Amino acid sequence: MAPLLKPSFHIFHHHHTRWLVTGLLPLPQTLILLLPRLNHSVSSPIPTFRLHSTVSAAQTQHLDNAGTGSVSSLSSVQQPEYSYQQRIDVNPPKGTRDFPPEDMRLRNWLFNHFKEVSNLYGFEEVDFPILESEALYIRKGGEEIRDQLYCFEDRGKRRVALRPELTPSLARLVIQKGKSVPLPLKWFAVQQCWRYERPTKGRRREHYQWNMDIIGVPDVTAEAELITSIITFFKRVGITASDVGFKISSRKVLQEVLRRYSVPDHLFSRVCIIIDKLEKIPIDEMKKELRSCELSEEIVEELLQILSVKSLAKLEEKLGTVGALDDLKRLFSHVENCGYSEWIQFDASIGFVREGRMRAICGGGRYDQLLSTFGGDDIPACGFGFGDAVIMDLLKEKGLLPELSLNVKNIVCSLDADLQGEAGAIASILREKGQSVDLVLENKPLKWVFKRADRVNAERLILVGRAEWQKGMVAVKYLSSGIQNEVKVDELE
Amino acid sequence: MAPLLKPSFHIFHHHHTRWLVTGLLPLPQTLILLLPRLNHSVSSPIPTFRLHSTVSAAQTQHLDNAGTGSVSSLSSVQQPEYSYQQRIDVNPPKGTRDFPPEDMRLRNWLFNHFKEVSNLYGFEEVDFPILESEALYIRKGGEEIRDQLYCFEDRGKRRVALRPELTPSLARLVIQKGKSVPLPLKWFAVQQCWRYERPTKGRRREHYQWNMDIIGVPDVTAEAELITSIITFFKRVGITASDVGFKISSRKVLQEVLRRYSVPDHLFSRVCIIIDKLEKIPIDEMKKELRSCELSEEIVEELLQILSVKSLAKLEEKLGTVGALDDLKRLFSHVENCGYSEWIQFDASIGFVREGRMRAICGGGRYDQLLSTFGGDDIPACGFGFGDAVIMDLLKEKGLLPELSLNVKNIVCSLDADLQGEAGAIASILREKGQSVDLVLENKPLKWVFKRADRVNAERLILVGRAEWQKGMVAVKYLSSGIQNEVKVDELE
Repeated sequence: MAPLLKPSFHIFHHHHTRWLVTGLLPLPQTLILLLPRLNHSVSSPIPTFRLHSTVSAAQTQHLDNAGTGSVSSLSSVQQPEYSYQQRIDVNPPKGTRDFPPEDMRLRNWLFNHFKEVSNLYGFEEVDFPILESEALYIRKGGEEIRDQLYCFEDRGKRRVALRPELTPSLARLVIQKGKSVPLPLKWFAVQQCWRYERPTKGRRREHYQWNMDIIGVPDVTAEAELITSIITFFKRVGITASDVGFKISSRKVLQEVLRRYSVPDHLFSRVCIIIDKLEKIPIDEMKKELRSCELSEEIVEELLQILSVKSLAKLEEKLGTVGALDDLKRLFSHVENCGYSEWIQFDASIGFVREGRMRAICGGGRYDQLLSTFGGDDIPACGFGFGDAVIMDLLKEKGLLPELSLNVKNIVCSLDADLQGEAGAIASILREKGQSVDLVLENKPLKWVFKRADRVNAERLILVGRAEWQKGMVAVKYLSSGIQNEVKVDELE
Repeated sequence: MAPLLKPSFHIFHHHHTRWLVTGLLPLPQTLILLLPRLNHSVSSPIPTFRLHSTVSAAQTQHLDNAGTGSVSSLSSVQQPEYSYQQRIDVNPPKGTRDFPPEDMRLRNWLFNHFKEVSNLYGFEEVDFPILESEALYIRKGGEEIRDQLYCFEDRGKRRVALRPELTPSLARLVIQKGKSVPLPLKWFAVQQCWRYERPTKGRRREHYQWNMDIIGVPDVTAEAELITSIITFFKRVGITASDVGFKISSRKVLQEVLRRYSVPDHLFSRVCIIIDKLEKIPIDEMKKELRSCELSEEIVEELLQILSVKSLAKLEEKLGTVGALDDLKRLFSHVENCGYSEWIQFDASIGFVREGRMRAICGGGRYDQLLSTFGGDDIPACGFGFGDAVIMDLLKEKGLLPELSLNVKNIVCSLDADLQGEAGAIASILREKGQSVDLVLENKPLKWVFKRADRVNAERLILVGRAEWQKGMVAVKYLSSGIQNEVKVDELE
């Protein structure tokens, strides 16, 4: 099979975040990779401890194990006979997460920022099935991709996969819509993606990914729009240009070098595949492979030198004025026009080398050839994928994660079991006015009610007592000040 | 294997909506089932037409097929040789949906109502992996459940399933959290669920489900809270008590009848399993099966009579004052206290008979025994599941779906290719002020720009022209009035 000459950054993103390792080399024309600037020590996620259903209900001690450690002693508890009340495995499947309320609040906080920024940029939200035909990914990435897919044969004997990324689905939908949608399309999504990996420590099999894609714009103004939207997100959550930086490159630069040395165009993809082995195989072995592509020693040295260039000015010094540089310069100028010059940096090696111990936060670029690879019209496209894992680690390390708690405006409680229905009616009145209410559903001592009020961060406690009720009133206590008033039910605000 | 004596309404919901057919019979103590009142003709979804990759890119006609019909002629287009640009299947996998922007806006509108109502009631949002261990569902529903699961063996030889419902995951998380979380828990989720079905016309394999669950409250105040929250949702979207109604029953009533005839308790679940066949097998066959459970002809007739009772008053006439009725009466009284009496109705057959051609909108009830079935503590629980399919059909039929369009505040456009960067800077300024902007990324004729402005519903068009820019100004045109002003860039609001 011929290597795919398709541009895509998503795979690079995956590759660099180790989310998905590509078999065949993608060839983005422009490549954007965003890495944390500081070599901060992001700790690996703690591997989920798995209780293999060895604890029975008879042994009903509460474990208080929120999924991590400290329960290993229980593995030794033997349950000789199978019993129907044998305890299930309380952990989510390997490599997946539950989202209890405290985690869900943070997830919603992050996703709301993704969505609000996308809306600021005039993008429309889309979604696709989490399950797609395996063929979609193999067409894009080659047979080798299957090793990283969470794929299986369904009961109808179809080869399907839990999507590893959103771009192939997006391309599929764009082709399906055809000319019924006017270009350019500006679409975003915040959805879950999956991979399959052999069990290794602390590597998850799912993550959420924010994607923004622009379909139908060939100019670098589209890349600039994507980069500035990511910067807008960072500014909103408090991350600065000293925390993270964009590294930007273009494969056209490499192509230019090869052309200059009269290397035929058809060798370009082969050369890229070899260069992609940089830092994976010894440098001498790589040089040998390059020379086997009819490249002279001089060209090989020149290529490797070009890859080490870290500024556009130096690249221009080396290459002179060439077309490949123009787009990059215009892209930088657009981002600088918005006042964001300190965020971006040229780096010719992006897409080829690993960034040491730093983990990529997001990756993106142009993938003009994907739609035609899928058999659609030749429509230019670019976009990015931004995972939820590395950014959350970074925000945590920088102390930028907000303290989010449940916030209910009112807690309503009857002081008498017989008034439970009346308390429900009061709750109903307040909710119809748009106020949130935690209704106490059982007869509980006041001490318990105050503790609950504190936990749900209630602003007011509304007590339904016999004496007040007979006057058509309830007691309203403002919990921060302690002030308590009797209020007529029909005057409750 | 002994039948599961676990109460659950979700399975009933599935059963009635045909979302999931149960093998072993669940035994909810209280069962709530919500059905459209009117026999409205909800049409079946149109089966997705599948293009089997027979169209090549060489035949690049645009199809304008938004997934339905009118492309069948293309099936006959033969593509004799495999080509890399052969067109992919542009449809989502069988039984799944894409959400292009227009569908996503409606989905978000619906889900926001679900979420806002849940917040009004003080519930906290949670989520779980879409992939769970198959054992979780088999423990709850028995081996037969596997036939309806979208299940498979993963590459690590684990039996997993795309979740058919959210309750088992919720129960798993509650057990995992143990005593670290204070009861009661009030949790909600709006997430996707899957089933596997042999290919039949227009039946989807995924849907989204709104769940609200209360863990730790044994009283019917919890069921009342769930029912009133659903009514709150209906009132918000414009559905009235003449459109839909709750049918409410309790299995305790049946149990009471059996006790009265001194039928031993251990026969209860067997009797329920047989009664569940009502309308599936001939009535005489069912009577025969019941009699084989040591039930006399008299008891069998009495049971069938009880099942036809449609009001609490008539039930009381038949049974006299019994404990089984008390809870039901209190539940009705709580809902009535909130002013919602016209929404609810007693129906003893709920959970046993199909509702003719009407489709259930949602189902819920008490599942006190699920946590102990999973090997957790014996904690009372109840909740409901509310799918996205039937309600959307009903809202559409009632004309209650809003017309939602993209709404971008500003469209910014340069009048000169050289000013593209400056237009980007203007967009950036407005976005930093929190205003949404659709930036025109290419040099386009003004006619195109106005058409685009109309499509994105822009309020203002901001034109960056050479003459104004030199004065530090831009042209601001209010699109509804047509009024146009020159505004200083640093005075842009």
